[in-house]
Amino acid sequence: MNRKEFRDLASPEAAREAIDSLPLEAGVERVPLAEARGRVLAERLDAELDVPGFDRASLDGYALRARETFGADEAAPARLEVIGEVHAGDAPDVTLEDRAAVEISTGAVMPSGADAMVPVERTDIDDETGEVLVRTSVAPGDNVMFAGADVAAGERALGPGTQITPRDVGLLSALGVEELPVRASPRIGIVSTGDELVRPGGDLESHRGEIYDVNSYTIAAGVEDAGGEAVLYPHAGDDQDEMERLLREAAEECDLVLSSGSTSASAVDVIYRVIEAQGELLLHGVAVKPGKPMLVGRLDDDESGSAGSTSGGSAYVGLPGYPVSAMMVFRTFVAPAIRDAAGLPEPETATVTGRMARQERYAEGRLRLMPVGMTTDGDGEPLVYPVDKGSGATTSLAHADGVVEVEPGTDYLETGEPVTVRLFSPDVRPPTLLGVGEDDPTLSRLLDSLENPRYLSVGSRPALRRLRDGIPDVAVVAGPLERDVDADELARWEREWGLLVRPDEADEVSGLTDLVDRDLRFVNRTTDSGLRTSLGVALADLADDRGVDRHDLVESIEGFDLAVRAHESPARKVLAGDADVALGLSDTADRLDLAFVSLGHQPVRVLANPDRRGKVGVRDLERVLDSVTELAE
Amino acid sequence: MNRKEFRDLASPEAAREAIDSLPLEAGVERVPLAEARGRVLAERLDAELDVPGFDRASLDGYALRARETFGADEAAPARLEVIGEVHAGDAPDVTLEDRAAVEISTGAVMPSGADAMVPVERTDIDDETGEVLVRTSVAPGDNVMFAGADVAAGERALGPGTQITPRDVGLLSALGVEELPVRASPRIGIVSTGDELVRPGGDLESHRGEIYDVNSYTIAAGVEDAGGEAVLYPHAGDDQDEMERLLREAAEECDLVLSSGSTSASAVDVIYRVIEAQGELLLHGVAVKPGKPMLVGRLDDDESGSAGSTSGGSAYVGLPGYPVSAMMVFRTFVAPAIRDAAGLPEPETATVTGRMARQERYAEGRLRLMPVGMTTDGDGEPLVYPVDKGSGATTSLAHADGVVEVEPGTDYLETGEPVTVRLFSPDVRPPTLLGVGEDDPTLSRLLDSLENPRYLSVGSRPALRRLRDGIPDVAVVAGPLERDVDADELARWEREWGLLVRPDEADEVSGLTDLVDRDLRFVNRTTDSGLRTSLGVALADLADDRGVDRHDLVESIEGFDLAVRAHESPARKVLAGDADVALGLSDTADRLDLAFVSLGHQPVRVLANPDRRGKVGVRDLERVLDSVTELAE
Repeated sequence: MNRKEFRDLASPEAAREAIDSLPLEAGVERVPLAEARGRVLAERLDAELDVPGFDRASLDGYALRARETFGADEAAPARLEVIGEVHAGDAPDVTLEDRAAVEISTGAVMPSGADAMVPVERTDIDDETGEVLVRTSVAPGDNVMFAGADVAAGERALGPGTQITPRDVGLLSALGVEELPVRASPRIGIVSTGDELVRPGGDLESHRGEIYDVNSYTIAAGVEDAGGEAVLYPHAGDDQDEMERLLREAAEECDLVLSSGSTSASAVDVIYRVIEAQGELLLHGVAVKPGKPMLVGRLDDDESGSAGSTSGGSAYVGLPGYPVSAMMVFRTFVAPAIRDAAGLPEPETATVTGRMARQERYAEGRLRLMPVGMTTDGDGEPLVYPVDKGSGATTSLAHADGVVEVEPGTDYLETGEPVTVRLFSPDVRPPTLLGVGEDDPTLSRLLDSLENPRYLSVGSRPALRRLRDGIPDVAVVAGPLERDVDADELARWEREWGLLVRPDEADEVSGLTDLVDRDLRFVNRTTDSGLRTSLGVALADLADDRGVDRHDLVESIEGFDLAVRAHESPARKVLAGDADVALGLSDTADRLDLAFVSLGHQPVRVLANPDRRGKVGVRDLERVLDSVTELAE
Repeated sequence: MNRKEFRDLASPEAAREAIDSLPLEAGVERVPLAEARGRVLAERLDAELDVPGFDRASLDGYALRARETFGADEAAPARLEVIGEVHAGDAPDVTLEDRAAVEISTGAVMPSGADAMVPVERTDIDDETGEVLVRTSVAPGDNVMFAGADVAAGERALGPGTQITPRDVGLLSALGVEELPVRASPRIGIVSTGDELVRPGGDLESHRGEIYDVNSYTIAAGVEDAGGEAVLYPHAGDDQDEMERLLREAAEECDLVLSSGSTSASAVDVIYRVIEAQGELLLHGVAVKPGKPMLVGRLDDDESGSAGSTSGGSAYVGLPGYPVSAMMVFRTFVAPAIRDAAGLPEPETATVTGRMARQERYAEGRLRLMPVGMTTDGDGEPLVYPVDKGSGATTSLAHADGVVEVEPGTDYLETGEPVTVRLFSPDVRPPTLLGVGEDDPTLSRLLDSLENPRYLSVGSRPALRRLRDGIPDVAVVAGPLERDVDADELARWEREWGLLVRPDEADEVSGLTDLVDRDLRFVNRTTDSGLRTSLGVALADLADDRGVDRHDLVESIEGFDLAVRAHESPARKVLAGDADVALGLSDTADRLDLAFVSLGHQPVRVLANPDRRGKVGVRDLERVLDSVTELAE
């Protein structure tokens, strides 16, 4: 094969074109009507029959000839002989003659000779003669639905490309369609590699650097969102032969193979080798951020052999390994191609416009796919803020609502600048409430009773900074407030904090002095945390009492600098035997069955941006907070 | 039981309250993560572990102590001994000492003693000593993602009620969640009754008044759209014992039983009897149009017995029989309750606003649920028009985009009056092009190449009227234009029309004179059709030739008044042996293998509303028409 050299990064447009050039269509399959909802019709369907298939009575009453009723009214009814009856589901066994009527039920076949019907409410029966008295006049066709009036045989029923909704199921039912030709879902194989990856549910050995495989299930869900069928292949590790076997198997069984992620160079080598042996590499490296190391190519069947053949085999896209990068590249480049192959339209409400909540600097020569969250300001206008925990973070996307594409050459997105957000899906509903701050068990319970809140556990100090920047609606701050903030305090409660130790060592620790004076391994929280602030104050007090320098006191605590961001992580380190004493809450001790040495109580304050008090989400929060505050009093 | 008497119709609000009072929740079930997309989380999930679970190198390079690099730069590198290496998936087997570094790959565990790392690009190896030369200085924490920095153990991960998107699958994967508690889908049993109903795919005996069962599959699709699980029960006919058995079985197995539609009084009797024996009727009759005959009640389990018990058994709603009525009532009253029980939010883009395209009269004391179609005017503003083929029509909904609720006491909706349309689903995309007019095979093929057109086969004459009313973008008119219209002709082609006969009778018919002079059973088209107009002109010419009155000529044709609306229906009647001669197109004769006697050619004109020429759909149509016109030239 003619392996191409890629000296420069391809443009995003070239990447799109390369992917669009790959044949992903999976053909046509027939599905039963009962399973057709959401599928895409592969060809036009014309009506094969009239609906209704016969002239049909629209009401209960009498079938007759309209001209027999001319001039009839309440006072001077037409008098007709009832010569038979027809029920729905019966074939009429009578033909209408002069001065005659036939009793008929809704939906029944109009008997031969009848051209109209009169509803039973406008008639009486003459008890003596049994004749029907018709107290109104009707015109030919009145109260009759003629054959084909609903749908006519030969009429265009549904066009190719129609995505079947319940309405269409109704039309197809009426036409008696049992099964229909729909676009087959493209099969998308997902191969993830890397010795360090463990499928969710498996046992994780963190000390060996194992992490859960995020990309496989996430991309599979994205594939299904885009109308594809996801096929997960077993996790290959970095064994080259096994990887090669998997790639070839996936290429045979699927329309597109997506690989993501080994961080080892050997995985890339294997992919190159397979593509070289059996396919074509179209593109390597794209000028986007994230997503630079993207590969686009084709894997041919063993049988079809020669490179350049488009029959058999499968398309191939190599996604970056970091989950956020992988998903951004998947959504931007791959999902549209899958949707197109599945025949699904671009979702209607795919984009919304909002203003940047704060300035964002960007000065790089690549298109940036910036994940953003959305909220609303006090006037209900959409605000957009970047969401990024760094490229290694797996979960930034969980707090993002969509993507803003930042053009290369942009230096800054200014505060208030309007930007277009491509939502992850039309179902995305920006949160009703955006809160940031301290992890707190009471708060977490409160949030459960709100509809669609978003809460980012950034710690107390960063929460105050973000509140000043005007992004969140509320900040939740624990411990002493170190500076004034321009915010409304919606609620305040107390929580007990202290030291957490294993129950069998509970006798060993009775207070802060043990931590300072004895040889115990401690786990601290980061300075972001309100717990850390309270600990600092307590240590300063102890230093004052002893007349020593606070710094010396701190130096004597083994692990004081071993600070973790996570609310429960110190306690979990104690549980695991990696430390003796952890900083934490009484609540956490209860939950994890640890012993607790109280060092005091600290306030937790819910502070609101004064401009956002009118938001529904903030008002709902206030209501929930009130009920709790009342309970506490 | 205390059967209630319903003298008055209940208000729509009372009907909503009655349905809301029925317990539809199906509880909680656990699903594997791979199947969680779209499901609704039943309870809050907190992180059970730190992500990452260890301090993690963000790049390939060297782990070291930051302080060893202080002051280092390109010119004066720090020189450190490389004492080992750590790869992703390995446990470090080395502890950092003074003046030492450890080679580390992206994603690997930071070795004990290291507090930062330097990317390989900023280093060199001294070939002689093997030492690494670090050409930059780093701060503690640089290029390291600390344990819990992504998600911290104990952190609130997802709140109850979260509908799982691919983003959430990513977060749950990172947390190693194997399965999760989600709201179980409420099971909705669907029982349809009526001797005249045949399941799609079955053989239809139209002469007996049989019709395909539209409601079962349509409501099932609506149930699934709303997040329920549809359970279709076999079709019961009007056998009372069988129906009773089915209703009881459904009540035992489902959370809600929906019955729809027998038109026979006996079905309603059975339902009353079952509810009387075993449940409670909450409501009978609602002041809505359509939907008056709605029933709301509860069916208890055989075991649970007494009326008024909410345990066991199922809720019950009786829908009207006519498909359009059934779906309108289902969408308005039942679907929200199912969605609520499934924990799904009301779709975000459920309503849009548009202006009425024409005046609509309504003067009734009931809330009207008016199915409407949508299009856009020349300025792209949404226009709304009522869609109604009469209450017996099964298919009006297929041409509708949503519902306008018209309050009782409204006399008129004026042309241009703004109305709120509740869309059938957020996926509803109003058509890009709204066309009305004659059924024509050439046109039907052309429409196949447009994206999302809507074409209503109303015939030529009604098409011109609607074009004048300003609703459609284009009208397609066949035959001579009988009056001037203010429209732009986009294209015109000819089609051949004439008489269709069975091949074995082809010798019997050679022209219009046979139809007039011989004893043949004819099937005509309605006066809406351009074919009928052309036939009328041809007969008038023949009458002139013969010097007779056109009326006498027409009288001598048996079946001249047997006019059907449907494009192919006349030909199909000939095929079925119900008639000898049909009015039709040469195209239809070809398709159905009938013999064709040409009576001439007639023009088909595509006429556009001049104000709509700028619409994308109209421009696309013009492009397609141009290609066809060129081919024809």
